[in-house]
Amino acid sequence: MAKRDFLDTNDFTKTDILDLIELSLALKRATKVGYYPPILKHKTLGMIFQQVSTRTRISFETAMTDLGGHAQFYAPGTIQLGGHESIEDSARVMGSLVDILMARVDRHTDLVTLAQHSAAPVINGMSDYNHPTQELGDLLTMVENRPAGKRLEDCKLVFVGDATQVCVSEMFIASKMGMEFVQYGPKDYHIKSSLLAIGEQNCAISGGKVSMTEDRQAALEGADFVYTDVWYGLYDAELSLEERMAIFYPTYQVTPELMALAAPGAMFLHCLPAARGEEVVDEVMDAAYSLCWSQAENRKHAIRALLAKLCPVPNLDDATRGEVKADINAILARLGLSC
Amino acid sequence: MAKRDFLDTNDFTKTDILDLIELSLALKRATKVGYYPPILKHKTLGMIFQQVSTRTRISFETAMTDLGGHAQFYAPGTIQLGGHESIEDSARVMGSLVDILMARVDRHTDLVTLAQHSAAPVINGMSDYNHPTQELGDLLTMVENRPAGKRLEDCKLVFVGDATQVCVSEMFIASKMGMEFVQYGPKDYHIKSSLLAIGEQNCAISGGKVSMTEDRQAALEGADFVYTDVWYGLYDAELSLEERMAIFYPTYQVTPELMALAAPGAMFLHCLPAARGEEVVDEVMDAAYSLCWSQAENRKHAIRALLAKLCPVPNLDDATRGEVKADINAILARLGLSC
Amino acid sequence: MAKRDFLDTNDFTKTDILDLIELSLALKRATKVGYYPPILKHKTLGMIFQQVSTRTRISFETAMTDLGGHAQFYAPGTIQLGGHESIEDSARVMGSLVDILMARVDRHTDLVTLAQHSAAPVINGMSDYNHPTQELGDLLTMVENRPAGKRLEDCKLVFVGDATQVCVSEMFIASKMGMEFVQYGPKDYHIKSSLLAIGEQNCAISGGKVSMTEDRQAALEGADFVYTDVWYGLYDAELSLEERMAIFYPTYQVTPELMALAAPGAMFLHCLPAARGEEVVDEVMDAAYSLCWSQAENRKHAIRALLAKLCPVPNLDDATRGEVKADINAILARLGLSC
Repeated sequence: MAKRDFLDTNDFTKTDILDLIELSLALKRATKVGYYPPILKHKTLGMIFQQVSTRTRISFETAMTDLGGHAQFYAPGTIQLGGHESIEDSARVMGSLVDILMARVDRHTDLVTLAQHSAAPVINGMSDYNHPTQELGDLLTMVENRPAGKRLEDCKLVFVGDATQVCVSEMFIASKMGMEFVQYGPKDYHIKSSLLAIGEQNCAISGGKVSMTEDRQAALEGADFVYTDVWYGLYDAELSLEERMAIFYPTYQVTPELMALAAPGAMFLHCLPAARGEEVVDEVMDAAYSLCWSQAENRKHAIRALLAKLCPVPNLDDATRGEVKADINAILARLGLSC
Repeated sequence: MAKRDFLDTNDFTKTDILDLIELSLALKRATKVGYYPPILKHKTLGMIFQQVSTRTRISFETAMTDLGGHAQFYAPGTIQLGGHESIEDSARVMGSLVDILMARVDRHTDLVTLAQHSAAPVINGMSDYNHPTQELGDLLTMVENRPAGKRLEDCKLVFVGDATQVCVSEMFIASKMGMEFVQYGPKDYHIKSSLLAIGEQNCAISGGKVSMTEDRQAALEGADFVYTDVWYGLYDAELSLEERMAIFYPTYQVTPELMALAAPGAMFLHCLPAARGEEVVDEVMDAAYSLCWSQAENRKHAIRALLAKLCPVPNLDDATRGEVKADINAILARLGLSC
Repeated sequence: MAKRDFLDTNDFTKTDILDLIELSLALKRATKVGYYPPILKHKTLGMIFQQVSTRTRISFETAMTDLGGHAQFYAPGTIQLGGHESIEDSARVMGSLVDILMARVDRHTDLVTLAQHSAAPVINGMSDYNHPTQELGDLLTMVENRPAGKRLEDCKLVFVGDATQVCVSEMFIASKMGMEFVQYGPKDYHIKSSLLAIGEQNCAISGGKVSMTEDRQAALEGADFVYTDVWYGLYDAELSLEERMAIFYPTYQVTPELMALAAPGAMFLHCLPAARGEEVVDEVMDAAYSLCWSQAENRKHAIRALLAKLCPVPNLDDATRGEVKADINAILARLGLSC
């Protein structure tokens, strides 16, 4: 069977995604009461990080090990990706030494190259283009917290601020699910049309809606979920504190006043880390309607389901198992070893 | 049940501590013959290091994994504590992704903040204030090596040299246990009175004694254990080799001559690493009466007991277990996965 | 029983080595179909790296964990070897905290010191002198890919290029096995006579042959395996791109034309990483006769066998096991813990 990578939720159907959410929820329930199905026993995840990370690294490592597997952390600088050796060659080697790979990279194209040349499935742990495990965790959080009696398809998600890769990712997953997505941000920092077009394609299938606006009132009206992210800008176009405040502050800061424009009972989301006092104030972050802490935890549960789904597990029949076991044991005995 | 942190042995009773020592000894006996009770199966320890470490890191990681759990190593610089994100926010997130945390920090106050905001218990892996897992390992070593027929409460521990956080920690644990503790060091490098007061409070309960002196003869007379640590000074007040030699050498160097002033059969302790030729000479480090190697190993055994005691393990009844297992298996089967 | 280190294949007999190859093959077969014998359960490997590594680190970590053990990665700079603390002291401490150690070091002498003072066995993960786990993986690869009907002892291995530690290692293992080994390289970059003497000693027992030459035709005639490595030079004598091209290019570049001089069906080997376009061209690296990808994977399989063979596993009889279990369980119950 061909391996399946997870680089972009746009490569998956709505049904695929909902299956992952269902599995995430079941695994969350089970592990909360102390039952850890050993789905990934003996399996190894290699984790490549080109940037420092807290949530993503801990989520992947915990998800892998509490289902019985192991995770190897390759910190920035400890493994070269495209240095001495080409990414193609590294991919080929790493893909033969571990069972599954994840990578947080500077350039999405490197991730695509990695996946093309690795025999092991590759999971995107964030690139300059998107952040699909964040999408899964956030979708799980919205499913758990949608207004009573309301279908997810009838919910509205408003992203406030800069068109970061997280903003784009939320647009992807909302449009995939058939939700309404609005980016409320300054015109020069709206989602690029080439990316919006992907969301529009999703909507053509799902019945969702995507748009961008500077109209505060229109954006927030009826919003069930209000999301924001930092204003730093992306990688080589990072903004100084002064620059970003001049562009986004105070209009695009999420405050209790802004939240009051949304639907009654609207919830707040943030992918974290947050720059408190910039894109969001303490009263919102720490409010009862803030889901940011659940999102962080839910990433772990969603990643667990993803690893369980993608990591190849050979189906070993009992006869073969008996044979290989006897084979090994004979050699071990001859060498004075035991097992 | 409220979680319990381990930041300071002064938060625990003598009985609590002795229970940990008993468990340490039992786990040491068991693992020495190859029996590893899977007390921490499926559990994850997050290890935050703001400074490089050999003994502490290896001890925690091994202790966690050989009882069936997993340990994640966050090297200095790979996870920010109080950088982009506040310690409070990081604590809240990390505490929801792992089961238990340990941290070696520059500032004890950061550890306290971490513990206050983390749902997972936090263990102190050394701060500028104290080193309580060192205390546990050393207490275990002294229990194992006390003079035949002598109660620990009747033993005398002399710390020679600078009032490092290890010196202070030894004063804490000795006074907690009801031992006699003396720091033999230059007056300007004696334990601060605010810290000594804590030891005195301990003594009021335990019947122990704490003091500091420059009187060599009086300090060492009847000493059962002679302890020393490096003379570097602490963090931002680190001393150059010349400065420290001028202050401590040769008076406070532990030599066979100094050891001869202690009780017959007195043992030598050192938390390591040692600067051989500075605070201690080879003839003492490598003597039969040197316990420093046992101390290093015993830290692992003590930390094992601590992790076993503090790491929350849900009590899953068989009926619930059966239900969640059936739930998961149904979903896995539907998705073509197996377990 | 005395512990056994693995610093140099020259410390082992041909039979020892062939046993490891047999075990490697059996473990490869078993894990390929999903059977992982838990030979290293509860065991901990400490991995010391003084240099960045991809293949060696991943191979060791995966090998250890998929046989049920754990591996701790000590990145360059995270543990000091011979800094604040002497290597002797670190070895003594580390050897009491983990079950087995591996180290990639700048200086082979440091590895020898480490092994002398560590109670835990030490495995050489490459030094400036040799690379013995590379030898094992390569031997496994040659055993799997030798010409049909030909004994390994009748095969010829030609190393093209610089006398790196990998070149020397291939000479060691080929001579140990009784093969013919030729280094084809510029005279000033031939294997040192002191090292060649070790190969000659091996040949006296095994019936093999070792030599060095600048004669292209003679070197390659009848070669079953053609091996190369980068031209960087070693550590403090590293060459600039210009320098190395001036010395080795184009004569010692492995091209289809060079391969054509070898025996029909000759295979290509490379320890990786490769500097494509320098010591080897794409048409060779990516040819059907290129074994470099198998070599990388086979290192993992060989290292698994090595760990299984060297890692001490106590033989616990059932009575003792029952006693220690009862002992622990009584204490756990008293402390309100369970297992």
